[in-house]
Amino acid sequence: MVQKMANQSKKAILMLLYEHQDQFLSGQRISELLGCSRTAVWKQIKALIDDGFQIQSVQKKGYKLLSSPEGLNEAAVKAGLRTKKLGQMIYFFDKIGSTQKEALRIADEGAPDGTLVLTNEQTQGRGRLGHTWQSQRGTNIAMSLILRPDLPIDKTPQLTLLTAVAATETIEKVTGLSCGIKWPNDILYKGKKLVGILTELQAESTYVKAVVIGIGINVNTEPEAIQETINQVASSLHAITGEHYALAPFIQSFLVLFEKLYEQYLERGFSAIRPLWERRAINLGKQIKVRQPGGRILEGVARGINDDGVLLLEKGDGSITRVYSADIEWEP
Amino acid sequence: MVQKMANQSKKAILMLLYEHQDQFLSGQRISELLGCSRTAVWKQIKALIDDGFQIQSVQKKGYKLLSSPEGLNEAAVKAGLRTKKLGQMIYFFDKIGSTQKEALRIADEGAPDGTLVLTNEQTQGRGRLGHTWQSQRGTNIAMSLILRPDLPIDKTPQLTLLTAVAATETIEKVTGLSCGIKWPNDILYKGKKLVGILTELQAESTYVKAVVIGIGINVNTEPEAIQETINQVASSLHAITGEHYALAPFIQSFLVLFEKLYEQYLERGFSAIRPLWERRAINLGKQIKVRQPGGRILEGVARGINDDGVLLLEKGDGSITRVYSADIEWEP
Repeated sequence: MVQKMANQSKKAILMLLYEHQDQFLSGQRISELLGCSRTAVWKQIKALIDDGFQIQSVQKKGYKLLSSPEGLNEAAVKAGLRTKKLGQMIYFFDKIGSTQKEALRIADEGAPDGTLVLTNEQTQGRGRLGHTWQSQRGTNIAMSLILRPDLPIDKTPQLTLLTAVAATETIEKVTGLSCGIKWPNDILYKGKKLVGILTELQAESTYVKAVVIGIGINVNTEPEAIQETINQVASSLHAITGEHYALAPFIQSFLVLFEKLYEQYLERGFSAIRPLWERRAINLGKQIKVRQPGGRILEGVARGINDDGVLLLEKGDGSITRVYSADIEWEP
Repeated sequence: MVQKMANQSKKAILMLLYEHQDQFLSGQRISELLGCSRTAVWKQIKALIDDGFQIQSVQKKGYKLLSSPEGLNEAAVKAGLRTKKLGQMIYFFDKIGSTQKEALRIADEGAPDGTLVLTNEQTQGRGRLGHTWQSQRGTNIAMSLILRPDLPIDKTPQLTLLTAVAATETIEKVTGLSCGIKWPNDILYKGKKLVGILTELQAESTYVKAVVIGIGINVNTEPEAIQETINQVASSLHAITGEHYALAPFIQSFLVLFEKLYEQYLERGFSAIRPLWERRAINLGKQIKVRQPGGRILEGVARGINDDGVLLLEKGDGSITRVYSADIEWEP
């Protein structure tokens, strides 16, 4: 109990330091803001230094955060986050099997709309249709977002497409790279995968209880550490640009962009998202092979998506088949 | 490990005794069928007697099951169950918080199509839209069925209606009582609730991973033990007929009837189920009040269901509203 309170004040102090980055914040001010003693503040500052944070301490001026240990922490994401709901509640794990599995579990327990499950290291990441998703300690983004939209269940797959738009816009804003979307849920740069998205639904008959969106982004993986999979060549933003990107501001940008798109979507429907998605889509008009969950393979030309976000595949005989869920293969 | 194997052979012996009810089965024959020693057979027979089973043992003839302790056990449901998939895999719990919660968990872990989660006593039963569902030890049926149908997600709510048909048909077959269905998921006899159904969906974007159907049936509750709820007067089959019903054959009948309807549904679609449902529906043509999950109340006349299983409500101005999910109140 005492330990939990101490952890709470450590997190709160760290958030204050993040919010006042590049300035000194006095121990007196911190103790006033948090309603704890100056001794308690000093104890937690020491604990943060033990955790790997570099904090400058100057007599009569106070404390200043100089740098953070590699990887993510909850306070860094929360400090100054300008969203209404998304990420306002964060479940942070230094290490976890799968953020998606944990998010599904806490969604079922009643976690509020906009809750974010976040980790520094994911050991058993879940990919779409049973694929796995790797994420190395402290280098990449692995997170799951819990949404509770008032939508008919058949509309919820559109949120995968919305997420893909939010992720490409975030990457463009942070790195300047313009990525493409491979229907339904991969984001590629020059044919190499940078982002994977997994949308899962919990519904009670016709009533949507929660949509849980898992997002994995290859941010800072070194080129030599990138894992090749059978179907898909992968890369990382760092491998492409040579830069290192701070993960917390990256996530904040994503949450802000996602929330804006999500509000437009809830207000105006998928028509607000579809043109943004189609502008980024890289397999429209191309000959593709589609491997469906049962193993059946369809071939044809990807003609577009309909208002439900379903892929329209034109087969050799000119007929159009609607593809609900599948892996796509095609010749670039 | 040894304990687990012993439990496995105990279950197997009990199944053999159920399958040969009213006959003697020799220890020699049991040991041959299960590939274990006659001493091991005797040890497990003794353990079954300790569990409350009455087993007659006669020199040179063998063992005969005379009676079972009150309530359910896995072997009683499995023995002689004439289904292809439903209930062929059973997770039985003598006591559990919620079969539905457990079924959702094991469905997520990969439990096969048709798996049944069953209990003798449910302490925190889940009802629809956050309602609770009570079930007393050994007297009623509380179970959850895991299905993995190849369906678009927006069709899955139809399985609630199919389940309601299967439950009314089972009750009619076992007890002779003809019950009515209150849209979407309650089964009533003369206005009193006998069965509650809760359908939950796990989907990955457009791909249905599992549908978990929770079914609670008030079978043998004594009239004085029936719990009244605010919205709904309840009863039990026993309170209506005065009879006691063996739970295991009841569940077997349900699984057989459900599987038959389910096969017809997967083959021919909801049109195979809709007339059976409408024949039992008790609120069609009636003035009803509908309380939606957000709290909004709609009033009108229930005109029917459409091919998606959605309720069509005719409002005062003659317009038709589609009701996806709600509690219904109406004057009988």
